[in-house]
Amino acid sequence: MPSPREAPRKLQEALDDAVAKVNKTIERLMPETDLPEARLYEAMRYGVLNGGKRLRSFMIIQTANLFKVDENRSRRVAAALEMLHSYSLIHDDLPAMDDADLRRGKPSVHVEFDEATAILAGDALLTLSFEILSDPATHEDPRIRCELVSALAKAAGGHGMVGGQMLDLMAETEDFDLGTISRLQRMKTGKLMAFACEAGAILGRADPAHRKALMNYAHDLGAAFQVTDDVLDVEGDENTIGKPANQDDAAGKATFVSAMGKEQAKMRAEMLVQQAIRHLKPFEGARASLLKDLALYVLERRA
Amino acid sequence: MPSPREAPRKLQEALDDAVAKVNKTIERLMPETDLPEARLYEAMRYGVLNGGKRLRSFMIIQTANLFKVDENRSRRVAAALEMLHSYSLIHDDLPAMDDADLRRGKPSVHVEFDEATAILAGDALLTLSFEILSDPATHEDPRIRCELVSALAKAAGGHGMVGGQMLDLMAETEDFDLGTISRLQRMKTGKLMAFACEAGAILGRADPAHRKALMNYAHDLGAAFQVTDDVLDVEGDENTIGKPANQDDAAGKATFVSAMGKEQAKMRAEMLVQQAIRHLKPFEGARASLLKDLALYVLERRA
Repeated sequence: MPSPREAPRKLQEALDDAVAKVNKTIERLMPETDLPEARLYEAMRYGVLNGGKRLRSFMIIQTANLFKVDENRSRRVAAALEMLHSYSLIHDDLPAMDDADLRRGKPSVHVEFDEATAILAGDALLTLSFEILSDPATHEDPRIRCELVSALAKAAGGHGMVGGQMLDLMAETEDFDLGTISRLQRMKTGKLMAFACEAGAILGRADPAHRKALMNYAHDLGAAFQVTDDVLDVEGDENTIGKPANQDDAAGKATFVSAMGKEQAKMRAEMLVQQAIRHLKPFEGARASLLKDLALYVLERRA
Repeated sequence: MPSPREAPRKLQEALDDAVAKVNKTIERLMPETDLPEARLYEAMRYGVLNGGKRLRSFMIIQTANLFKVDENRSRRVAAALEMLHSYSLIHDDLPAMDDADLRRGKPSVHVEFDEATAILAGDALLTLSFEILSDPATHEDPRIRCELVSALAKAAGGHGMVGGQMLDLMAETEDFDLGTISRLQRMKTGKLMAFACEAGAILGRADPAHRKALMNYAHDLGAAFQVTDDVLDVEGDENTIGKPANQDDAAGKATFVSAMGKEQAKMRAEMLVQQAIRHLKPFEGARASLLKDLALYVLERRA
């Protein structure tokens, strides 16, 4: 999301640092193989190591940082979450779903490999993310590991991300009201963002109030991010040369802009960001400043 | 697999009992919902509660029984494993994979619903199986829960079941030798069967030797099962009216029969079953007798 020329320098450095470190962890946890199933791992690596901005990783690492968690731990959890996030994109891009040939300007996994390989690569990535979380290398306390598995499964499952994708597909033919659109977005992207911050809190053995505050921050940030995404989609032609505008509208997707208009949507994003920042109150201090910067940046971004 | 008129009465009763109890547990863990994502849960329930024989559930329950584990626990693990097994069948049936319109004589999930819903239902089932295993209701000791998550993820992932499915697809265009076919089958079906027995051992806090013995039993049983499946496929027209024979051969699938001939394949199944039974030695006694009966039955079955 943030591009080098726009994000404040300190935030950008921290974002770049998260990308480099988490990619290294992913490389290590998912090495190439000489075994006959090599093609599967090529597809998995292609799908995950594709230049993603690792926003969720950044959120895990920064949140864990509030509690002075060893970064080797938060990086493993971040790698697991990026694998899960990538699986959802690989399956989302399939012909039967969004039918997207490109992802970050490169052929999507089912185009570069084939549909069957893309389905299986997604399945294997989802499975691997739980294998990593349950590994003692992630945390020596099995209670912490179980909490991570449980929280991720809830965020990513049928009443979380996958349920949100189901609603997103249904929105193409059904007229959802604003409440249902909000819930859809919260499920589809908000819950995984909330997990990112929850994971930091779990690793840091935060008390319930602090854990809840961080999840609320993430929910509001995710919602603001989604609203600004919708706004950028309709403004695409005004700001970015060559970016097709109104893609969502053309696809009949449920967006905040179509539901409440562009100006109202912008005000909503502003309100959500202020709300997100208020949730950081219990963590006032230098350690929380990057999370605050990230929230403010959501309003400024242009791509 | 076993049908009422063929399996020994005691074995059949225990198999029927496992079906009834595990289906009840699945119903409870995956209830219908009034939420907007109801369609997803309908598809998930349709895919799991489809008359499956719950062979893996039987193996978990019986193995856990060797260690006198509370059956409420083994049934939850069995439900999780059946969900995972069902997800693999739902994805396997997709047009891009095996393109199967029928499953147990009923329309497969993507036919009854649609392709996108089938992909998402599979994803949600896989995710839910890990949610169940990590739940304190499965076992109060988080170390046990983590071991279950880890063992299932390894059995089901890229070097396990999903990797085996990848190889199975590759076998349609590549000539694999007998060693690779064996490895393919071990990955595709053997590892999940081994997990069933391993799970019982984990729940029972078995020592490593007993745990290994049960996994070896399951591996050999799974392999024997696969070989007899291949034999039944070519003998289908001789024994069963209306069942299309030589399906695997027509699809260019790597089978034991195509690799070693029918008579050799039958001898191999016999040998594997005897080997499976030898692994039960440390558990001699009444409690292991049903596992022994199951192994013997694999050779007798006709469907």
